[in-house]
Amino acid sequence: MSVSLYDVSIPPMIRMLENLSKILDKAVKQADAEKIPLSTLLEARLAPDMHPLPRQIQIASDAAKGGAARLAGIDPPGFPDTETTFPELQARIAKTIDFLKSVKPDQLAGAEDRTIVLKFPQGEMKFSGRDFLNGVALPNFYFHVTTAYGLLRHKGIQIGKRDYLGGA
Amino acid sequence: MSVSLYDVSIPPMIRMLENLSKILDKAVKQADAEKIPLSTLLEARLAPDMHPLPRQIQIASDAAKGGAARLAGIDPPGFPDTETTFPELQARIAKTIDFLKSVKPDQLAGAEDRTIVLKFPQGEMKFSGRDFLNGVALPNFYFHVTTAYGLLRHKGIQIGKRDYLGGA
Repeated sequence: MSVSLYDVSIPPMIRMLENLSKILDKAVKQADAEKIPLSTLLEARLAPDMHPLPRQIQIASDAAKGGAARLAGIDPPGFPDTETTFPELQARIAKTIDFLKSVKPDQLAGAEDRTIVLKFPQGEMKFSGRDFLNGVALPNFYFHVTTAYGLLRHKGIQIGKRDYLGGA
Repeated sequence: MSVSLYDVSIPPMIRMLENLSKILDKAVKQADAEKIPLSTLLEARLAPDMHPLPRQIQIASDAAKGGAARLAGIDPPGFPDTETTFPELQARIAKTIDFLKSVKPDQLAGAEDRTIVLKFPQGEMKFSGRDFLNGVALPNFYFHVTTAYGLLRHKGIQIGKRDYLGGA
């Protein structure tokens, strides 16, 4: 019994979103230098039925803010998913980070045993806070950050693991 | 102070590796049914300088066994990275799961404050166990599992988020 649920959820998500923001900056800079239309990056998909870059970033944001809010037992801010440009995506990331920073460690005290209910059209699923973090929030968050990274790599953007991990 | 470092590291990695194993089974099944050569999947890359599928799985394995071993203060088993076929990749995943299951919760007691040293050709980096898990082991592990998933999706394999999350 040794780390708080806060320590293994909010700060790592803030850090990864900061890394993602820097990755987007690098992508735009390289695209500008090489005259790659930004639409090439924004419309990139790994498969026809996978989401393009903006939606990957919106879902990463949703996983972060929704995960943090559920663990804290509060409502997440609603963001309307209207971002279509890099500055708008950066603003979405910044708003998400601001919200994560507004959630304080004592709001997650005991969250490991809080019951979290996810509602779907077909019904609902219940999790402990611990299982929700381990089995839903973090895997889903990392999935969309990694897929955003992969989309940019797929389109020739020169980024590496160091950008993803943030200097680690 | 409320969850053990074990709870937020070893069981989630075991679960994701089990999901990855089922994803590979689905990929082989679909490839067989549609006469897609398995080499198409095994040689898939998202970018010419990114690793193909087998290496993604080897690194996911390394992140899991190396992460668990470092947190436990023991040496990880050495796997020689010779896998080139789906059965070999499945065996690699199974061996990794077996090792993770052999690491017991009390071996990670106090691991959040254990100093972990990563050595690189250019020097070394030191982390607390907590920072290593949050900033290196888990993000790196999820990166390679997600990239393996993305490679298969990119090649037309019909898998979805439910396969990645494992029924959550």
